[in-house]
Order: sequence, then C-alpha cells, then structure tokens
Amino acid sequence: MIRAGIINVTGYVGAELARLLGQHPGVQIVGVTGRSQAGKRLPEVFPHLWSLDLPIEESLSTDLDVVVSALPHAAAAEALRPYVEAGTPVIDCSADFRLHDRQAYERWYGEHPTPDFLQDAVYGLPELHRDEIRESKLVAVPGCYPTATILALAPLADAGWLDGGAIVDAKSGVSGAGRALKITSHFSEVDENLSAYGLDGHRHQPEMVQELAALTDHGQPDPAITFVPHLIPMTRGMLATCYPRITPGALPPDRDAALAALRDRYRDFYAAHPFAQLADSAPSTKQTLGSNACLLYPNVDAITGQVTVLSVIDNLGKGAAGGAVQCLNLMFGLDERAGLSAIGIYP
Amino acid sequence: MIRAGIINVTGYVGAELARLLGQHPGVQIVGVTGRSQAGKRLPEVFPHLWSLDLPIEESLSTDLDVVVSALPHAAAAEALRPYVEAGTPVIDCSADFRLHDRQAYERWYGEHPTPDFLQDAVYGLPELHRDEIRESKLVAVPGCYPTATILALAPLADAGWLDGGAIVDAKSGVSGAGRALKITSHFSEVDENLSAYGLDGHRHQPEMVQELAALTDHGQPDPAITFVPHLIPMTRGMLATCYPRITPGALPPDRDAALAALRDRYRDFYAAHPFAQLADSAPSTKQTLGSNACLLYPNVDAITGQVTVLSVIDNLGKGAAGGAVQCLNLMFGLDERAGLSAIGIYP
Amino acid sequence: MIRAGIINVTGYVGAELARLLGQHPGVQIVGVTGRSQAGKRLPEVFPHLWSLDLPIEESLSTDLDVVVSALPHAAAAEALRPYVEAGTPVIDCSADFRLHDRQAYERWYGEHPTPDFLQDAVYGLPELHRDEIRESKLVAVPGCYPTATILALAPLADAGWLDGGAIVDAKSGVSGAGRALKITSHFSEVDENLSAYGLDGHRHQPEMVQELAALTDHGQPDPAITFVPHLIPMTRGMLATCYPRITPGALPPDRDAALAALRDRYRDFYAAHPFAQLADSAPSTKQTLGSNACLLYPNVDAITGQVTVLSVIDNLGKGAAGGAVQCLNLMFGLDERAGLSAIGIYP
Amino acid sequence: MIRAGIINVTGYVGAELARLLGQHPGVQIVGVTGRSQAGKRLPEVFPHLWSLDLPIEESLSTDLDVVVSALPHAAAAEALRPYVEAGTPVIDCSADFRLHDRQAYERWYGEHPTPDFLQDAVYGLPELHRDEIRESKLVAVPGCYPTATILALAPLADAGWLDGGAIVDAKSGVSGAGRALKITSHFSEVDENLSAYGLDGHRHQPEMVQELAALTDHGQPDPAITFVPHLIPMTRGMLATCYPRITPGALPPDRDAALAALRDRYRDFYAAHPFAQLADSAPSTKQTLGSNACLLYPNVDAITGQVTVLSVIDNLGKGAAGGAVQCLNLMFGLDERAGLSAIGIYP
Repeated sequence: MIRAGIINVTGYVGAELARLLGQHPGVQIVGVTGRSQAGKRLPEVFPHLWSLDLPIEESLSTDLDVVVSALPHAAAAEALRPYVEAGTPVIDCSADFRLHDRQAYERWYGEHPTPDFLQDAVYGLPELHRDEIRESKLVAVPGCYPTATILALAPLADAGWLDGGAIVDAKSGVSGAGRALKITSHFSEVDENLSAYGLDGHRHQPEMVQELAALTDHGQPDPAITFVPHLIPMTRGMLATCYPRITPGALPPDRDAALAALRDRYRDFYAAHPFAQLADSAPSTKQTLGSNACLLYPNVDAITGQVTVLSVIDNLGKGAAGGAVQCLNLMFGLDERAGLSAIGIYP
Repeated sequence: MIRAGIINVTGYVGAELARLLGQHPGVQIVGVTGRSQAGKRLPEVFPHLWSLDLPIEESLSTDLDVVVSALPHAAAAEALRPYVEAGTPVIDCSADFRLHDRQAYERWYGEHPTPDFLQDAVYGLPELHRDEIRESKLVAVPGCYPTATILALAPLADAGWLDGGAIVDAKSGVSGAGRALKITSHFSEVDENLSAYGLDGHRHQPEMVQELAALTDHGQPDPAITFVPHLIPMTRGMLATCYPRITPGALPPDRDAALAALRDRYRDFYAAHPFAQLADSAPSTKQTLGSNACLLYPNVDAITGQVTVLSVIDNLGKGAAGGAVQCLNLMFGLDERAGLSAIGIYP
Repeated sequence: MIRAGIINVTGYVGAELARLLGQHPGVQIVGVTGRSQAGKRLPEVFPHLWSLDLPIEESLSTDLDVVVSALPHAAAAEALRPYVEAGTPVIDCSADFRLHDRQAYERWYGEHPTPDFLQDAVYGLPELHRDEIRESKLVAVPGCYPTATILALAPLADAGWLDGGAIVDAKSGVSGAGRALKITSHFSEVDENLSAYGLDGHRHQPEMVQELAALTDHGQPDPAITFVPHLIPMTRGMLATCYPRITPGALPPDRDAALAALRDRYRDFYAAHPFAQLADSAPSTKQTLGSNACLLYPNVDAITGQVTVLSVIDNLGKGAAGGAVQCLNLMFGLDERAGLSAIGIYP
Repeated sequence: MIRAGIINVTGYVGAELARLLGQHPGVQIVGVTGRSQAGKRLPEVFPHLWSLDLPIEESLSTDLDVVVSALPHAAAAEALRPYVEAGTPVIDCSADFRLHDRQAYERWYGEHPTPDFLQDAVYGLPELHRDEIRESKLVAVPGCYPTATILALAPLADAGWLDGGAIVDAKSGVSGAGRALKITSHFSEVDENLSAYGLDGHRHQPEMVQELAALTDHGQPDPAITFVPHLIPMTRGMLATCYPRITPGALPPDRDAALAALRDRYRDFYAAHPFAQLADSAPSTKQTLGSNACLLYPNVDAITGQVTVLSVIDNLGKGAAGGAVQCLNLMFGLDERAGLSAIGIYP
C-alpha cells in the first residue's frame, strides 16, 4: 500500500482527495492536516467521511510515500518545500508549479516562494504528459478550467488546426470557488442567479496558453484565448463551450464531412486515454458527477460553420482531486484508473 | 381603461401577462382563455393569481380593445386571424409574425397559416421600432433569446462596428421552455445540471440576423450569428454573452479608451429607452427578476482585446410578457413604463 | 408623503424594505444607513435597486416621520433609543421589543439595552394587534417563524381549541439567515441539502408562546410549542407545518364535518384581514414570492384524525419587510394594503 | 459471479440498480429491460452509464440467478409471476409484496394481481428482517419513506417506548417521484418552492404501521402514524423528522439523562447493522448522497421535552436501489456491505 498524506484536507479539494484515496485499493491515508481544524477528527468536519476516522493534524508525520496538497497557491509551495527537497513525491493541486514561466506566475499570483522548483515540475495532465508524470517527483495538477479547456482544444492544436486562438465561454458550479466564506458563494446571492466574472482577466488563462502553445508548431504565435468564466447555480460540474478559429482548409467544407473529420481527430487523439471520452450527444455536467470522466463533443454550427467543442467534467473530480489521483497512479506505476472507476451518480 | 383579452393564459407567458396586466393602472383584463383548462377559474390553475378571479374560457368575448396572445406558433396565427381581419389591435408572443421572410419562417416552423399578414406586422422590440409599434395593429413580440441578443449587439451594428458577425453564447432558465411536460424540463434531469442544446441550429437565430442586418449598412452581407443556447438550473433569467467581431479601427487600441468608447456608444444608443440600462458592473440575472430591465455590460478582454457584451433579462419579463406590455403601452399612447416599473426582487 | 428612514439597509430585510418603500405610493425614503457600506450608493450594493439612487449614510438625518430598523437585536435597541425618546414613530424588525418579558428576552438574547421600552412596544402582527399598532409609536415586527406559526394557530387558540400545545415543523429558505457570511449559508453546503437545526432550542419559540398564550383562556397553562426549524435549499419562502393538539370534542368526529368547521373558523377569524388567506388547496411557498400573503390550509389527517395546519409566507415579505410596511400603513392611517398589493411572482 | 437481471432499468430506481450492480464485485448484470426504450443501448438513455454498454431488451433471457424489478406496482407482480413460480430469487422494489394484508394493499393500490404470493414475501428491511431475507426467494424492498421512518422509530417500538404513535413530517427530493413526466416534477414548478402533499393519505403509511406494530407488544393497538410528506427542491435525499409519543416513565425526566438513554437505545438496537448509523450531530441529507447509510439522530426538545428523531437517507440509495442490493447480498450469502461501501459525495 502506498502511504499518502493529504495537506489541507478541510477544503473541498482536500475532502474529495480523502474520499477518493480513502476508497483507493492501493493507497492508505496515513495523515491529514488542516489549518484551523487541527485537533478535530475528520468526520467532525465532514460527516460524510464517517468511515475515515482520522485525526486532523497540524503537520504530517514524516513516514510517507507521497504528499498530496490542497493548499492554495504560495502556501502550497512553502509547505511542500521540505518534501521536494527530501525527494518525497509531491502532487500539488495549487497553481504554484503549473506555469513554467516565473514571470507569468508572478503577474497573477505574486512573488513565487520557490521559483527554483519550477523547472522540475510537470504539468499534471496525463492526457498530454503521461510519460513525464511517470518520471516526476513534483506534479502540478491543473486547475479545473484549464483541464476542461485544454482537453477540448488539444486535438485541434496538435493537428495544426487551431488558427490563432479560441473563445472559451466556461461555466462552473460554485464549489470551484472553494469552502471559504465570500459573498459570491453565499447561497442567496448565487441561487437562481447567473453571472459572468473575471472580466478583467482570470489567472487560469495562462495555463491554457502554455499547454496549447506547446502543441502548436514552433514559430507560430501563442494562441489567443479569450476566456470568460461564468458562475452557475449548482454545486459541482463544469462545462467549457469552446469556439476555436480553425485553420482554413483544415476541415472539408461539407458539414457532415467536417463533423466526421473532427470526431475522428478526437477519437484518435484520446484513443489511449480512458477518461477523455468522445460523447455521442451533447453531454451535460451531471453525467460526470463523482466520476473522473471528461466528456468531449466537437460540433460544426449548422448555419455559420463555426466549430464548437463542448467539454464537461466534475470540477472537483477530473478537474482537481480525481486528476491528482490519476497522476498518483502514474507516478507509482499503478493502473491509471485505480480508484477512479466509479460511475457518475445520476440523477 | 383599455380592455384586454389574453389568449392561452395557462402557460408561463400567459400567466405572466395576467400578472402584469392585472396590476396595470390603465388596463382591465376582460377575458382569458386556455385550451385544456377552460371551465376552471384562473386561481385554480395559478394560485398566486388569487386576486384575479376570472373564468378561463374557450374563446374571448368580442368586446375588446386589444388581444394579447401567448399561444405557440401556428396556433397563434390561426387564432388571431379574425382579430387581425377585424382590425382589433393584436400583440402576439409567438414566432408567427416576427420574420418578414416567409421562407425563413417556413424553414424553422413549417407552413405559415396566414402569410399575407407578415408584411403588416411589426417586430415588437421598442428599442428598435418604437415609432412603428405606435402605428401598428399587429405586433410580434420577440423571443427571449433575440431580445437579449439584439439589444446587446444593436449599438454595434448601428455604428457599423459589427464586422461580419458574432458568437452568442446564451444561457436561459428553464421556464423559457414553457410549462409543457418534457424530459428536458424534468426537475431531476435539469437540477444541478448544465448543458448546451440546439446544436443543430435554433429557430431564434434568424430573428437576430433579420434585426441586426437591418441596422447594418446595405450592401454588406448579413451578420453571421453563431448562436449556442444553454439550459441553466434556475427557473427565470437569461444571460447572453456576446463575442462580436469588431470592424478594424472602430475602437481605439488602448483598452481603457476602447472601453470608454463602447460605453459611450451604448449610453447614447439607449439614451431614450428606459429599460435598456448600461450596468456599472457585470450584471447577474437575478437583478432583473420580475422587472422589465435589460442590463447591458460591454467589455474588452484584458488579454486578447476581444470585445464582449453581457446582456441580462428576465426571460418571462422583458423577454416575453413585459416586452408585450411595453408594446401595448406604445400602441395605446400610454407611458412606455406603465405597469412595468416594478423593482426586481432580490435575493 | 410620509418621510421614512431605513436603518441598516444593507442586509436582506433592509433591501426588501427599500424595495417596498421605494414603490410605496404614500412613502418617500429620505435616508438609508449601513454600517460597513457607508459612503457607497445603494445600487452599488444592490444593483436591482438602480432606480433608488440614494447614498448610504452612517446615520439618518433627523427630519423623518418614521424610522424602520433592520438592525439585529441589541444593536437595534441602541440605535433606536434616540428616536423612541424623541417620540418619532419606530418600526423595528429585530427581536428587541417583541417579548414583553425581560427575563424571556435575556435568556435568549443577553442583556437588554433598553428594558424600559418593553412595556410600550406593540407586537407588530396586525392580524392580532391592529388597533394597538394604530396607536403605537414603537412596533416590534415579528420574526418570520412566529409570523407563519402564530397565524396558523391563532384561530385555534382564540376558539379554545388548542389543548396544551402543538408541534411546529417549520421550513425556511436560506435568506432567513441573512446576508452575513457563515458556513451554513454557503451555497455548496446548503444546495441540494436539507437539515433540521436549532435542536437545542430556537429563540423564536418564546414569541409564539407569548402570543398564543394571550389568546388562550386565563388560568390555562401556556401552550407547549415544540418548534423544529429546517433549512431548505431555496432562497425565499417559509412553510410551517403545524400539528396542534385539539381540545377533545371541539371538532365533530366526522372528517368532512371537522374540515368544514375548521375552515369556517379560519375564514371567520381572518375575515377582516386581507393578507391572511384561506387556501383552497395545499399552498406552496412560491405562490407568495414577493407578495405579502400568508396562505393558510387547515386539514384533518384522513387516517389518524390529527389536525394539521399549513402556513406559507415569503419570509422576507410578510415575514419581515412586508409585515413592517403593513404596520407602517396602520400607524399612519393609510390603507393597510398600500404598497403591498403586488401579486406574487410565479414561477 | 451472481447473474442478475434488472427489469425496467429506464426509471431512476432502475438506473441506480444498474449503477450499483454494475460496480458490484460479486454480481454481473446479464440483462436489462425497459418498456418504451427497448432496442436502445443503456448509455443512450443514461449517458452516465457509458461503461455499461448493454442492450435494453423487452424481456430478460432466462439464464439468471436473480431478478431485480424496478417496475411500478401491479406491473411488477405481473412481470415477476413467472420468476416466482419458477423459484428464481426475486427482489422487487414496488409495493406489490410489502403489505401482508391484501385488504390494506387493495385499499391503496387496487386489485392485487398475485395475492397468493403475499404470504411468502419478506419485507426487505435487513435491520428488522435479516434472517428472513437470507432464507427468502421473494423480497419486497420498502419504499423510501418507510425505510427512513421505520428505522427512526423501530428502536422505540421494540423497547415498548412508543406510546400510541407518532407524527412523521417527512421531506423528500424530487427524484422520489420518478422519471415520469408530471407537473409536480416540472422544474419551474418545484424549483425554489416547497409544499406538503398527500394530505388525504399516502400509501406508504400502512407499511410503517405494519412494521412498527410487529415490534410493539401484542395486545396493544397499532401505532397511529400521522404521515405528512413534503416535496423539497432538490433531486436526491430524504429526511424524516419524527415526533413520537413516548411511554410515560420510559425515559428519565432529566434532559441529559434522557438523551443518553435514547442514544444508548439506538446504538444497541443497531449495533450489528452497518448502515444504520447514530449521528453525532444533526445529519443533513447530502451526507448520504450516493451512499447506503441511514443517519439517525434522536433528541429531546430542550423546552417541551418532546422526543424527536431525525432520519436521513438517499432516497434512491438506502431508500430503494441500495436497499435492494443489501437484500441481494443477504440472499446470496455475501457480505451485507458488498458493493455498498461507497462514501457519500459531498459537497
């Protein structure tokens, strides 16, 4: 059994890590930490975890095979420093190690506590970096928006079909904003309500550009991603509706032929990846509730010919904790699907 | 008092017409009809209308100043034929008289029952056609999606800034699909769920093109509107997130200057229109619940420079029944705001 | 026009007071205050109030006909002291002046800042105290739970049919907990979730006992009210399901006859009260959204003969701000319904 | 592997059976049926079941070890007749075999298609009938309301503490009403709304009486259960708030002592039952989402001394499909928890 510790188990990503690792056939949770709740037992904070009766500690004991962190940025890098320096495998769900470019990081997040770690970190999206993750000791799990968006656009970028960029109109359930108290997560403000936010720029956008640019031919400019997130009155679930500009001539002019070519492209690109699924009809978020699937649905607008790609995930699953467990499986040579095969709960 | 009759009061648009006209200082509801519920009294079907204790009849008595119809397309034209032929003012909330082009109508809705009426009908969006509505006896209230979208893009089209088209990523509450029973309106299917639909084309799209093309310079091609609607787990409210292509050079290159120019454009264009409001911050749908406002928020993406326009309405208010009452006010020389001044209910 | 000031406009009760008084034909809002938001304008905090462009001040200017307070308990009494002492009519939505018994108050709320005011305050439930409210200068608007519960049980208590007490299983939307940030109002915690709370006693219970005891024959013990509130995943609306013990012999043994007697009792008791409505079928909360109605539905269990009474209100309407406006109308000799005649919004 | 067939997989209970049995380590689903959807594959109807790519057939092939039916009453008895007659183990989720008394059945459900089977059927609540279920070939899974209610009151009835009856104020998510189209499951009618229903009697009540009476001393009258169900705007989850009348003297007069005695009683009664859990604080429904737990919380009202018992389940889990799988495990000598150990999903 792999001995895992979870740092900051008391947020939603931390609780979801506990739920997934607590049921994982090859993992034993040997410790969990939480800042303000240290001293309580895990089920006191999250009664649904009554079968995981662990004490919440201030810090992890040292005898661990892997550390998974659900701390926010900056705090994560600080807390993980000793593990990285000791060579303990680390999986981080914050933004601290996602961006290779320190300047890009510091524009959105402020000074980086451990910039020297950036070059060794791997972007933890197995569908793009599986082999690197297998070899890595510091994996940066992507944010939920980048997970949905990059998986939607990577097959196009990789084929050279992404001409300049895309508009990404993304929609997220409220749990994506975490368990912290803020007026924008207050039930009466969010319920029966809908709004766009982040209109002056969202810090998840540079991750999208970094990963899509890496797939694009060198010499081309980075793709321009106009990213507009929206807050949806539901707890879990994320849909990215992507409107890419397609390289002229890449697709046949006939709509049915273009659709077939698009679907072939997605099927081929993800043939070896069990969680990236080509959907047979427009997917809805609840189809992924509690699962690790990303459902993809490319389409061609019947009137204008605009290509659209729908991408659906559980933001706390594949978009956070599930993605982290998938990376853990790869880092330890397990079946990529271990502990992640649960069918989504519907309705 | 203007004597009004409501046809098909038993759907959501009909009930909202009853609510608004029942409180209108210049209107008296003298009759309401409903197909399957004839014989009951209105509060038996809609208990919230307990102060409007009217019998639901099979057809309206004839002594009326105006007929407002909430029937679906085709049924509306059939039922309204005698009123139109008798010269009674008619306000229709269906699609039957919205499209001037019979071919466009028949592509989406099937054979038109009364194609000869098309040329006399006025598209009932007062912000574009106020004077025509004042003179008309047959007003076609726009659909909710076109209301939100056209109001968002008209200032750009009118200025010649709309270069070729726009992507419109629209989001609607479930009440937009009406009170009929269908699996896509079933609570357990829609709740805590999110999806795009109409991906093979949506019949509201031609209205948008018709109205925006009329504002665009002659000789230019019709704007290409890629329209993707989404179903949101809430009852009321609509947000259209619009991504127009802007004529090169129309806006200054500096973001702040472009923002100022955009806001000036919207403020000027709607200066005389009380319900089209320029919002000071990104609006949310619940800000319009039960009101007749359309809140508009143009923006410039801080990273890519893409112009975005948010447009928010109550889909049953300004997007249907409220829009109809606004037209009624104009047709009868009342203050455009009569019966429509209610403040939205929040939270 | 009556010149009104609102203290603490920045919570949900305050905002609802602004919405109602801002549309009231006989009232002018001349000032609003808010603690942390002083210096902003009202629509900056509540964009739905864009037509009420008032500055939020630290304290009210003095030239007022009436002060309406939406401060929490203790703070209310402190802030209202100068107005009460100056003889300005005061309507308070907190608990500070609801309980005549200082000991009862201090058991639940701590030391009373102005106990000498208690004897002059009137409990602001017009259906029980209309004449006293008309003569009063200090009216204590009931809490939402007591409003729904007392209106449900008063006709029984008044008839001597309430034998010892009742079980009250009450359900409230989340807005009843206010706009303050707490984990129990966090969207992801409340959405798609249901729980009972206040199981060690709820401070609204003594109000119920006080008012129902006053209707019961002297010499009898106070009614025992077992009150269990539940938090419902919706923003507005309250339902109290009441299970009274009925005096043996008060009702005929036949169910239909008992039902008829019950309905006659409720109809008679509320004959002169426009907002207490006897419902023809089991009411639902959304039938009262944005209105001032209390819908009452007494019933007799078909199997056990237990009497049940359903009572439905909008917790921010009749249960708070609407109740306050109703009192204001009475205090100033206006029609009790002035500014409160809006039909509920449905769906 | 136990070869299982599911009849009527196309409703919510059927889909949940497929989800649970499709992940069960000891069961293989060898066939599924659905009335109107025969000919499709299961993921076409329920995309979340994409890993269970089975054809939906009109009827099951015969080579089966067990049949699980999610048909509604009457249809179930008809469809199951051949299996019962052939001695194939049958688990039925309808009401057809729950009531031992044919008259009670026929009062609520109409004529019974196979009344001769009633005497051999076992009520499938393992916490009361584990040994009988192990020996049975025809198990009737309880309804969701009886599951929550009986588990809440059985420890009292069994101890002789239930004096005459109880008031049961029950609250259910909308999925309890199934996937059929009805106005009371329409999103816009149910969302942001709350109501009681079944006020003229609910057919789940006799099950409660039957099972609780069986625990009560012979010679005593059957307990009187006043059962009032409420529809909550959420998809899954059920809470029964129970107000039992307690035998005088059964509990010590001191509240703390009474609480301790109650908690001991529940702990003892369910000591050998893994899914009936005594909660440490008032439970909420989402704590059981997707799990098979029933969380129980007995309490004593701090003011009146009334005993209350909260009982929380996932209505499609322990209240239907999970309960059925638990019975299957017992019938085939498996660990009672096999396939049911999933931790609930939160938030």
